[in-house]
Amino acid sequence: MSNAQIDTASLTNDEMDVLERYWRAANYLSVGQIYLMDNPLLDRPLEPEHIKPRLLGHWGTTPGLNFIYTHLNRIITKNDLEMIYVCGPGHGGPGMLANTWLEGSYSEIYPHVPRTREGMQTLFRQFSFPGGVPSHAAPETPGSMHEGGELGYSLAHAFGAVFDNPDLIAACVVGDGEAETGALATSWHSNTFLNPEHDGAVLPILHLNGYKIANPTILARFDDQQLRDMFSGFGWEAFFVEGEDHAPMHRAMAETLDRSVARIHEIQKAAREGVVNERPRWPMIVLRSPKGWTAPKQIDGKKLEGFWRAHQVPIGKVRENGEHRKLLEEWMRSYRPEELFDPSGRPMPDILKLVPDKSRLMGLSPHTNGGVKAELKLPEIHQFALDVSGPGETTGEATRTLGKYLAEVMRLNAEARNFRLMGPDETTSNRLDAVFEETDRVWMEPIEPYDDHLAHDGRVMEVLSEHLCQGWLEGYLLSGRHGWFACYEAFIHIIDSMFNQHAKWLKVSQGLEWRKPVASLNYLLTSHVWRQDHNGFSHQDPGFLDHVANKKADIVRIYLPPDANSLLWVSAHCLQTTDRVNVIVAGKQPSPQWMNLEETERHCRVGAGAWDWAGSVAEDEEPDIVMACAGDVPTLETLAAVQLLREALPKLKIRVVNVVDLMSLQPEYSHPHGLSDRDFDQLFTTDRPIVFAHHGYPYLIHRLAYKRHNHANLHVHGYREEGTTTTPFDMAVLNEIDRFHLALAALKWMPDQGEVGAKLKRTLEEKLDRHTAYIKEHGEDMPEILEWQWRGAKA
Amino acid sequence: MSNAQIDTASLTNDEMDVLERYWRAANYLSVGQIYLMDNPLLDRPLEPEHIKPRLLGHWGTTPGLNFIYTHLNRIITKNDLEMIYVCGPGHGGPGMLANTWLEGSYSEIYPHVPRTREGMQTLFRQFSFPGGVPSHAAPETPGSMHEGGELGYSLAHAFGAVFDNPDLIAACVVGDGEAETGALATSWHSNTFLNPEHDGAVLPILHLNGYKIANPTILARFDDQQLRDMFSGFGWEAFFVEGEDHAPMHRAMAETLDRSVARIHEIQKAAREGVVNERPRWPMIVLRSPKGWTAPKQIDGKKLEGFWRAHQVPIGKVRENGEHRKLLEEWMRSYRPEELFDPSGRPMPDILKLVPDKSRLMGLSPHTNGGVKAELKLPEIHQFALDVSGPGETTGEATRTLGKYLAEVMRLNAEARNFRLMGPDETTSNRLDAVFEETDRVWMEPIEPYDDHLAHDGRVMEVLSEHLCQGWLEGYLLSGRHGWFACYEAFIHIIDSMFNQHAKWLKVSQGLEWRKPVASLNYLLTSHVWRQDHNGFSHQDPGFLDHVANKKADIVRIYLPPDANSLLWVSAHCLQTTDRVNVIVAGKQPSPQWMNLEETERHCRVGAGAWDWAGSVAEDEEPDIVMACAGDVPTLETLAAVQLLREALPKLKIRVVNVVDLMSLQPEYSHPHGLSDRDFDQLFTTDRPIVFAHHGYPYLIHRLAYKRHNHANLHVHGYREEGTTTTPFDMAVLNEIDRFHLALAALKWMPDQGEVGAKLKRTLEEKLDRHTAYIKEHGEDMPEILEWQWRGAKA
Repeated sequence: MSNAQIDTASLTNDEMDVLERYWRAANYLSVGQIYLMDNPLLDRPLEPEHIKPRLLGHWGTTPGLNFIYTHLNRIITKNDLEMIYVCGPGHGGPGMLANTWLEGSYSEIYPHVPRTREGMQTLFRQFSFPGGVPSHAAPETPGSMHEGGELGYSLAHAFGAVFDNPDLIAACVVGDGEAETGALATSWHSNTFLNPEHDGAVLPILHLNGYKIANPTILARFDDQQLRDMFSGFGWEAFFVEGEDHAPMHRAMAETLDRSVARIHEIQKAAREGVVNERPRWPMIVLRSPKGWTAPKQIDGKKLEGFWRAHQVPIGKVRENGEHRKLLEEWMRSYRPEELFDPSGRPMPDILKLVPDKSRLMGLSPHTNGGVKAELKLPEIHQFALDVSGPGETTGEATRTLGKYLAEVMRLNAEARNFRLMGPDETTSNRLDAVFEETDRVWMEPIEPYDDHLAHDGRVMEVLSEHLCQGWLEGYLLSGRHGWFACYEAFIHIIDSMFNQHAKWLKVSQGLEWRKPVASLNYLLTSHVWRQDHNGFSHQDPGFLDHVANKKADIVRIYLPPDANSLLWVSAHCLQTTDRVNVIVAGKQPSPQWMNLEETERHCRVGAGAWDWAGSVAEDEEPDIVMACAGDVPTLETLAAVQLLREALPKLKIRVVNVVDLMSLQPEYSHPHGLSDRDFDQLFTTDRPIVFAHHGYPYLIHRLAYKRHNHANLHVHGYREEGTTTTPFDMAVLNEIDRFHLALAALKWMPDQGEVGAKLKRTLEEKLDRHTAYIKEHGEDMPEILEWQWRGAKA
Repeated sequence: MSNAQIDTASLTNDEMDVLERYWRAANYLSVGQIYLMDNPLLDRPLEPEHIKPRLLGHWGTTPGLNFIYTHLNRIITKNDLEMIYVCGPGHGGPGMLANTWLEGSYSEIYPHVPRTREGMQTLFRQFSFPGGVPSHAAPETPGSMHEGGELGYSLAHAFGAVFDNPDLIAACVVGDGEAETGALATSWHSNTFLNPEHDGAVLPILHLNGYKIANPTILARFDDQQLRDMFSGFGWEAFFVEGEDHAPMHRAMAETLDRSVARIHEIQKAAREGVVNERPRWPMIVLRSPKGWTAPKQIDGKKLEGFWRAHQVPIGKVRENGEHRKLLEEWMRSYRPEELFDPSGRPMPDILKLVPDKSRLMGLSPHTNGGVKAELKLPEIHQFALDVSGPGETTGEATRTLGKYLAEVMRLNAEARNFRLMGPDETTSNRLDAVFEETDRVWMEPIEPYDDHLAHDGRVMEVLSEHLCQGWLEGYLLSGRHGWFACYEAFIHIIDSMFNQHAKWLKVSQGLEWRKPVASLNYLLTSHVWRQDHNGFSHQDPGFLDHVANKKADIVRIYLPPDANSLLWVSAHCLQTTDRVNVIVAGKQPSPQWMNLEETERHCRVGAGAWDWAGSVAEDEEPDIVMACAGDVPTLETLAAVQLLREALPKLKIRVVNVVDLMSLQPEYSHPHGLSDRDFDQLFTTDRPIVFAHHGYPYLIHRLAYKRHNHANLHVHGYREEGTTTTPFDMAVLNEIDRFHLALAALKWMPDQGEVGAKLKRTLEEKLDRHTAYIKEHGEDMPEILEWQWRGAKA
């Protein structure tokens, strides 16, 4: 649909005038933010001292964003819509700020920036100013639940926000630069997972303004037919709004929004009345408008409006260059501010007619600021806990146990529809499949009779894209709901950068009182490095923990539960927290269980503790050596090493320390979960050797504990980037975190044990040789490994 | 084009028979790898002990991969094509191994696996066996330059391989699971950057077998029209080959490949004769075939062939379950091995007729194993070096200086066409734009007259997708060429996971003699954390260094050149290395220069050294304190701090140490660039306080240096995840890495300086207060910061 084809009857001249004036006001306010620190209404001639010393900000995308915001206001009022604005294009900040100030929500949230002359001056001055506000949509931006700094995640966030929000429409502006990113490119597929009966709608508005920083964008150079084909292929129906002349563009946009909202309501009605039951072809809008629309046509004789020169600050050196300053003044006066604001700085009453009812203001939408937060009902964990009569006497599968708990969480919250499980096609592989007793995988493409637990209203979201899992979940959490992301450990690195941005969002949000707490982002990393022997080297990487540990202590937690009950406890705890990122690593293979529920609670609450039942030293005695461990496989291997040591050296005093909460290793002044130095010293001693078997890269332990008194005696074994396709135990051997190497390390660092020690050393070395020969011949681990059992102190 | 429409006249019965038998042989060999460790020819009844104890591997995708490989052999011979096979689907290993063994290239590379009965048994046994070979395409796999473990990168790798390889066709099989990933979704856009005149061609074969591990795939549930639209939108022409009956599928595939190759040749001819000069509509193939094609239809009464149950090992517990074993034996015998191999295990001569000439074998293609490696001509750096008469007396822009050098690299290698520069739309922003004097940005969409340095044969590749930059570059390097990836520091995390896989690839490759060295992957991270004050918190993250440091020491290098000449030296050095990942961080802003070229060479060669001109202690004297720094901004702030200290405390003995090569901090036994303990102790002392200003997160320095004698006295300042939109200097203040905080830290740790020290402390604290007040009022840094100059020892 080009302009020519659009029926323009729907917009009166009055309506047109208000739209145009509102847009002009938003554009004026946007230019003002980039340039001015004084004289906001231009009621005096523009002088150098009115201009900011450092010109920062991005004009290019802003007029288009303002155009869209203006028109959304119209359609919100007309249809009494509950709508949010997801601002994808980079550096769209001035537009969001201009519009939320104009509609009043900015001043509602920030009373020190009222809709007055002074308020306008503050709005201008604070933009990209030290101690002020960022140049893109950010936590500080009212009405935003999306960070516009790193590109690519807008559409996934928008979908996350509307899942289980049947009355909400997320208008999502996708920049044409952003559209080139991988995350955005696959986000178009999100419609396969959106159910019109229970979910709201996303209205994508692909904004083609033609240029990135210095280059044209790919999609902007596609012709309409190519775009129509592409989006049709993705299951969307694309409407086009294209041009630069204001009047026909207003008509086209109004008409197209009317049509799009009508189509959304049609689809929802049909689905909710049970008339239609397949993936609908949702509407989307392609908006082609000039980059930097309404800026001067030229600067210094070179093309400006509609070109990449309009991307950032279109006119530079305005303080110093009188001609540039004149050009800026003419530009700003071209919006005729005196017609838009009264002398006190307040927007004119007729402009404010376009502002929706306060309960519908996009800048105040509670879906974007934690104002809506569903309560998550959680079951007691004791009904799921494994019965552990004594350490090592029961075998259990940690994630399978957790799966039953998560199924109950699903059941308890089925009616509220406020909990979802995300994963890249791995829920069953990760042995969480008990959840399928309560729900299904959501899927809106055709379903075949032989498909397994696929349904239109499933609450498990599986797609082979970690980006989508993460982006959807972020949107779902930030709009007040709860979730869980289970992922292969190695491949969580795919969303390292998304995690960064979410952690930054949380840090900034915590400083904003008007943003209420949101549920934490919970990761379960399973199919982890030690049990990816069959998938090989590419599936072996525990480095996400290191990545996470760099973020602010307030935000991040890392848990390494050693067995099923501790995984249960930690998971239930994480689901109750807010404003954090919790990372849990736990295996899915059958393994010995160490703690009953009572012991689990005591142990996990502190985060680290001595397992006296495993060691050979009384609580109040000093050990000869500390054998520490974090993670399920390291715990198993440590206990097996301890057993070997205790059998050979019955008089040796060994303390076994297990660490569940990795952050407990940091000092208490570095992390809220950190053990005090006294507690740490009591556990790890100040002068005895510590052999520490860690789930991940060994350096992380050094990094966390380098300030501790006994750091010089800390010898960490962990993943040293040695891997291949082999047996599970051989993975441990290759990285010297197996029982034999751990026992050898203990022998090396402990006081000399004379002939008995030397003999044990020879035995251990022989066992390692035997292991290597055995797996080469048999292709599986030696019986003594496969059948190993904790014998406790019976040795 | 469905089967019905295909003209089947092109395939004789004989040809058909050979294709079918070859495919059967490949399928037989694939099943054998998953199951057998003995009785490879099934010349005896199948017994439990012939079966591997641990059944690992993935059947689902394999028959389709074999079908494609078989047909590519036909078309290679028919057209004398230079072709490679990029195997995208996860766990496609058995297919690649079966085919390369069948064609003889496997035995050529691995003589211990000959085309005999014994060789076949070795081939079977080693698959997913300890010490054997992985289950997906991997470095160990002949003919592969693509790791099949982590999904999403096949198409980008294929494009990378054919850029500047005009005679090469990369047949790229894209799995329908893989197609859901972000990286793959945007890779379809790569055709916008492929020039048919100078580049080869990629023939994507989208393999829709319908299922991932447990779910249908999105694209497989799309109908043909939807797929045709989608790919047409992306600029491709899709041909369809669909079905399961063997004869019509062979005819359809042969016909479609004929048509596709003819189309590729037409396009290339038109472009190379200058007849056509726009982005062509390249052909691609959509192959719909059953998952696990040719497997038994059912197992235990449940659907197997064509379903997700065929994804992995289709028949389990074969050792233990007699019925399952019988089913397996029937399945394997259904390929009639006795018709495919003679009793000695050698493939029958008529089957081998399909094998291309040795020089054309995909399994031996030198484009995939470093066998082709273009020589990169490098200019001398002295002609680009800045003239530095004394420390701090010149101002320069590091990346702008490097840009001129890279332009000359472009010029020297223009004819050879073996060097490309990648970046997400940031070459100019990162001030490398001197390269545009020698070349342009490549772009095959329409070009407007006002576009800036866009051309069909440009050698700068800009796309707003770090995934594509990385994927293309990996493909380009692995096929024997050279390149450079310049990226905003924060957003390089987007490809953390791709870096992981490339580093793993290099580590394994180094152990394979038949893989020759390839050029290193060089990253220039600029627009870095300390100068992203205007872009705000989302653009501030120096954590890629931590991520990189986890990989094997043999593979990774991290450089933090403090000025332009050192950036030049380091860059020229990196371009000469092979089989590494080099990470260089350098700013783009005007800054003081410290070293002339001679000093630069001496300093960078060691990687770390004392700057005696900056300190106040003779070389052979012990200092009172060491002020160390790594990175351009930390170096500047350290020198400014030293200047403050020297002026106030002229008798204080300060040693200034600058670290360029971060790995020099590690012990020499941990990293090849590590300083010996003696050298380290000489530089950093064994007992004096060290205040270390580091570019990134401070923990990295502790992690690298925790084994050093003086570690307990090491006080590191770095990025502590404090950021916002502010001034450049305020970014340093927020993280306490600015001159005032560094001088305060020095005061804290050095011997007490009495009243003079106390006075200096007050002065520094006042300066910090004044700074904060000043930027809030003026929006820029205090003049004393903006105009600061190194005054050396003149104080």
